[in-house]
Amino acid sequence: MKTYVLNPGTDLSALQLTERPRPEPGPREVLLRLRAVSLNYRDVAILRGTYGAFARPLVPVSDGVGEVVAVGADVQRFRVGDRVIPSYVPDWVRGPPREDTARRRLGGPLDGLLREYVCVHEDAAIAAPAHLSDAEAATLPIAGVTAWHALFTQAHVGPGDTVVAQGTGGVSLFVVQLARMAGARVLVTSRSEAKLARALALGASEGIHTGTHPDWAARVRELTGGQGADHVVDVAGGDGVARSVEAVRMGGTVTLVGFLESPAVRFDLRPALSRVVRLQAVSTGSRDDLEALARALAVHGVHPVVDRVFPFARAPDAFAFLESGAQFGKVVITFP
Amino acid sequence: MKTYVLNPGTDLSALQLTERPRPEPGPREVLLRLRAVSLNYRDVAILRGTYGAFARPLVPVSDGVGEVVAVGADVQRFRVGDRVIPSYVPDWVRGPPREDTARRRLGGPLDGLLREYVCVHEDAAIAAPAHLSDAEAATLPIAGVTAWHALFTQAHVGPGDTVVAQGTGGVSLFVVQLARMAGARVLVTSRSEAKLARALALGASEGIHTGTHPDWAARVRELTGGQGADHVVDVAGGDGVARSVEAVRMGGTVTLVGFLESPAVRFDLRPALSRVVRLQAVSTGSRDDLEALARALAVHGVHPVVDRVFPFARAPDAFAFLESGAQFGKVVITFP
Amino acid sequence: MKTYVLNPGTDLSALQLTERPRPEPGPREVLLRLRAVSLNYRDVAILRGTYGAFARPLVPVSDGVGEVVAVGADVQRFRVGDRVIPSYVPDWVRGPPREDTARRRLGGPLDGLLREYVCVHEDAAIAAPAHLSDAEAATLPIAGVTAWHALFTQAHVGPGDTVVAQGTGGVSLFVVQLARMAGARVLVTSRSEAKLARALALGASEGIHTGTHPDWAARVRELTGGQGADHVVDVAGGDGVARSVEAVRMGGTVTLVGFLESPAVRFDLRPALSRVVRLQAVSTGSRDDLEALARALAVHGVHPVVDRVFPFARAPDAFAFLESGAQFGKVVITFP
Amino acid sequence: MKTYVLNPGTDLSALQLTERPRPEPGPREVLLRLRAVSLNYRDVAILRGTYGAFARPLVPVSDGVGEVVAVGADVQRFRVGDRVIPSYVPDWVRGPPREDTARRRLGGPLDGLLREYVCVHEDAAIAAPAHLSDAEAATLPIAGVTAWHALFTQAHVGPGDTVVAQGTGGVSLFVVQLARMAGARVLVTSRSEAKLARALALGASEGIHTGTHPDWAARVRELTGGQGADHVVDVAGGDGVARSVEAVRMGGTVTLVGFLESPAVRFDLRPALSRVVRLQAVSTGSRDDLEALARALAVHGVHPVVDRVFPFARAPDAFAFLESGAQFGKVVITFP
Repeated sequence: MKTYVLNPGTDLSALQLTERPRPEPGPREVLLRLRAVSLNYRDVAILRGTYGAFARPLVPVSDGVGEVVAVGADVQRFRVGDRVIPSYVPDWVRGPPREDTARRRLGGPLDGLLREYVCVHEDAAIAAPAHLSDAEAATLPIAGVTAWHALFTQAHVGPGDTVVAQGTGGVSLFVVQLARMAGARVLVTSRSEAKLARALALGASEGIHTGTHPDWAARVRELTGGQGADHVVDVAGGDGVARSVEAVRMGGTVTLVGFLESPAVRFDLRPALSRVVRLQAVSTGSRDDLEALARALAVHGVHPVVDRVFPFARAPDAFAFLESGAQFGKVVITFP
Repeated sequence: MKTYVLNPGTDLSALQLTERPRPEPGPREVLLRLRAVSLNYRDVAILRGTYGAFARPLVPVSDGVGEVVAVGADVQRFRVGDRVIPSYVPDWVRGPPREDTARRRLGGPLDGLLREYVCVHEDAAIAAPAHLSDAEAATLPIAGVTAWHALFTQAHVGPGDTVVAQGTGGVSLFVVQLARMAGARVLVTSRSEAKLARALALGASEGIHTGTHPDWAARVRELTGGQGADHVVDVAGGDGVARSVEAVRMGGTVTLVGFLESPAVRFDLRPALSRVVRLQAVSTGSRDDLEALARALAVHGVHPVVDRVFPFARAPDAFAFLESGAQFGKVVITFP
Repeated sequence: MKTYVLNPGTDLSALQLTERPRPEPGPREVLLRLRAVSLNYRDVAILRGTYGAFARPLVPVSDGVGEVVAVGADVQRFRVGDRVIPSYVPDWVRGPPREDTARRRLGGPLDGLLREYVCVHEDAAIAAPAHLSDAEAATLPIAGVTAWHALFTQAHVGPGDTVVAQGTGGVSLFVVQLARMAGARVLVTSRSEAKLARALALGASEGIHTGTHPDWAARVRELTGGQGADHVVDVAGGDGVARSVEAVRMGGTVTLVGFLESPAVRFDLRPALSRVVRLQAVSTGSRDDLEALARALAVHGVHPVVDRVFPFARAPDAFAFLESGAQFGKVVITFP
Repeated sequence: MKTYVLNPGTDLSALQLTERPRPEPGPREVLLRLRAVSLNYRDVAILRGTYGAFARPLVPVSDGVGEVVAVGADVQRFRVGDRVIPSYVPDWVRGPPREDTARRRLGGPLDGLLREYVCVHEDAAIAAPAHLSDAEAATLPIAGVTAWHALFTQAHVGPGDTVVAQGTGGVSLFVVQLARMAGARVLVTSRSEAKLARALALGASEGIHTGTHPDWAARVRELTGGQGADHVVDVAGGDGVARSVEAVRMGGTVTLVGFLESPAVRFDLRPALSRVVRLQAVSTGSRDDLEALARALAVHGVHPVVDRVFPFARAPDAFAFLESGAQFGKVVITFP
């Protein structure tokens, strides 16, 4: 079968197409023929060598969807023909995160999904929601699950709450859609009027242009009668976390999900103390989270936001496009 | 001022119109001129002598809305002209229920709101949402708060969850509207096709006609792929609780909020054990719950369901109508 | 190897000793040589045919401890020589209870542990705490885990809380020991002065003799300044649940774990509503619960209470003794 | 009556003894004759002008205990002769922190307790536990409540958990005593062998000498089988928070309660993300927390740790001693 691998190197040429034998499903495994994968910032960072230090050659990419073309012994959850989404952290099935189930991850250290066929354990996958296209279904495992886990597993965002989504990347757009689905009022920040307009069309209640309002936290407080938001999902890290702390109400939560600005978090503890702020780091979630996300999308007929779709043969271009930061939503690669 | 009082007796003639001096607001109190009140089953049961044993004459009715016409010393939360909803349990401001804040309740043992003027402590009231009519604003304290506390304070109903509302009384319709607002799928039971149709129009996902499906729990399981609902709000009590237990999924919750059928709850413990069911009794909530409810209704522009509105002069007819059970939603009395 | 099986019949003669081939560990399985098992009321009820309807011959008994004598391929959690406790519900590893992981249970429908050797999946077992004897280690899976899950997973019993344990059976004595370990004040009910004295020696704060105080709920209220207990663990079911409801404080919890009196639960909803009571059915817990229990016992050097130990050859006598109800704590069978 | 006030200035001479009229209790207020107060780092920081900017003259000190010598109208919770502890944040009675109940605080902006008499609202005080001396009872409001709120309100520390207390200041020693009471294993860090020995005598399980183990987080991981602690209560802030993040297990919590090192918190987000760490800022708690703390101390007969007691006349010496950092536990001032 055809597969991409990361060979040594830190530029796009490290990503090369090659041939490998098609795997055979063992007991309780299903063999998937991949239909689409989606990229995360993590995939680019691994390629660039700034995230993890995984042995190469490595098949990259963690998120995708495929069709079951064969089942191993004792498989009960799936049948040939089912459309299936593998879980990014295959051993994290249920409950809180634990060391023993967190190590193995698709796309590094385990081989990922940028190949024609893959075997996954039936406990490490869910049925894809029927209303989603392949490209849409491929976006759930990291971006969707991180937003879900942040809003509903580590917190309980509900009707009338105010949630702030930073920017319009993959996780942030899921935050917009999911928080809205839960009845929250969603404020979105962006440097682009056009992206704010699209976020509003997606369900956001108000946009905050960070050019017009460089102190976006002050703007959040204005828009919430001086109280602050109940929840900020911070994708930037760095010094900006101080602003997220200022943007939440007393007793509010800042969820830390990324470090687009910098991994060096810095903030003044005094306002955090006087407002009794919680900072919760979140990095994906369990298969239960993935399943709950899929169920909610299905109940509401909601579709994740896919920006551009690249064919398998042009996978490196998809990496380059993600890295440009120009996208609104997810970048997807589909299989022939 | 004009006021209704309950005198001794258990039929409607016990409810009589009389004159009393207009109260004066003490420190931190506001004087309200009432605009509308709504009835709850509790009000009828108190009149009939089947609920509590409160000293008479008693001014009945707990739920309403009024306009601030005077403020006492040190009042900070409200000003003259504000439209204000008193809290049914005035001392329960925040946090879980406790003995010391649960005793005083409007409409018994404390005098209630079926009178032209009332003084309330500023901590025991909230601002009415601007988008609600007087009749609508008057419905929040018991029915709305009970539904809110059940779904979001004692539980965390969220997107994709399945919630069952029994019938189409005041609490159940709030359950439909609020659970829907939170992204849940809502199943409603009723003996009336017409009421089911109205519940669907209100946001319910499916109706279960209990004539066609006397074993409505089996129908719930059918509609949930055999799993059962995440949450049943049981307003009936009695033997029917056994059915609610059968209708929830493993790890699900049955919220007990009323006993329209009977207060003598009965169920087989074995299915409850094997499905690890939680039964949670809920009876109203705190001022924080009331405020959160008002905020959520305002964010969504949602209006509570008012069936019929009676003028103050015909208050006894409102009691009789509520008792008939014919209503869909709340029964309201407005002031001249 | 020698094994007991339940053949058709509902008296003790249905339990018969026979020979079966020693099993071989498959991938990720360990082969245990059993050292001790403990009995639960469930084991007797299965024998008597009053619980479940499992195909026979069935190897009975769910709880025990053994030594690893061989490991299958890819085993990472254990080595030969480790002392290991299998999990009663092997697929329930972590998180809340779910249908798909609740079905398979040792001692019915799966074959249990009353045999010389058994193979268990490494994910369905934990290391036995070193300070426990074999007899003690064999008592954790059902009785200990049920108490743990009730007090710490479904609730958060902590310092200064008041917990009521009913009687002195296996679960109740774990409740005494664990609630005490968590800093709670523990009240124990019993019809026997001698058993109350032993419960006090075990850490209970006060005993309530149900001969002297047939209305034990009133006594609980007396002992808690009129407030009621924070938590009652009800092992009796039936009409007595009404008393448990009366014994808890406003906002308190009644955990339903058994039906020694009757599975037909009955109570008046009105006091439950006015006190906002939670009734939580609990039936065992996850491997995570088992592991947390083992860790806590180890940190505190606490030993479960074993009443009488029978040799393997006299297993039927152990069943008869448990059924007599005379025991204080657990009944254990050890292997030669 | 005699009272200390803070006059303008930032050294000890700003603290001056003066005369003021004895206050009279208003409705629902009690008049206390103070018996003892305890100092917190906050009191010194306010004096030094590094915390808040409160109008002077200000009566300093927030924590204390007094005897009721008169009651105002309608007081129901207390009687003359009762020994009573005022709540540091008088309006925060119950539930989560909110803006509207967080502003008024004893010792700034409100006048505090370093005076012979004070009036407090009955809802803003609790009965002192009978087993505590005046000096001991005076230590609960800030240090005790912060530890309680951190361990049991924002988290659920229970049997077998591992908790790390930093140093041996007031909050940290309460963490040792309370976490131990809840069945946790407590690790304490200190630069002093003598203080570690005293912490062990108080119930700590292991001491970590930060001279011997400058990387105390690595030592915590060693002592927890490589997993990390469940909970670290960080009193230092600054760059050290990075170490606290490294010291907790996957899914663990770092509670931020102080900034003895620096308010400028800094840590690398990547280990926080990969271990899904929660950082929770905590600053005191509600009257409910204070009451629960008092109840737990009473059930266990536990006494807070008082280091040195100064007479009222030598109050400035008490401030100086606290500032020296030499104390083990609380610094108290008693009244003649």
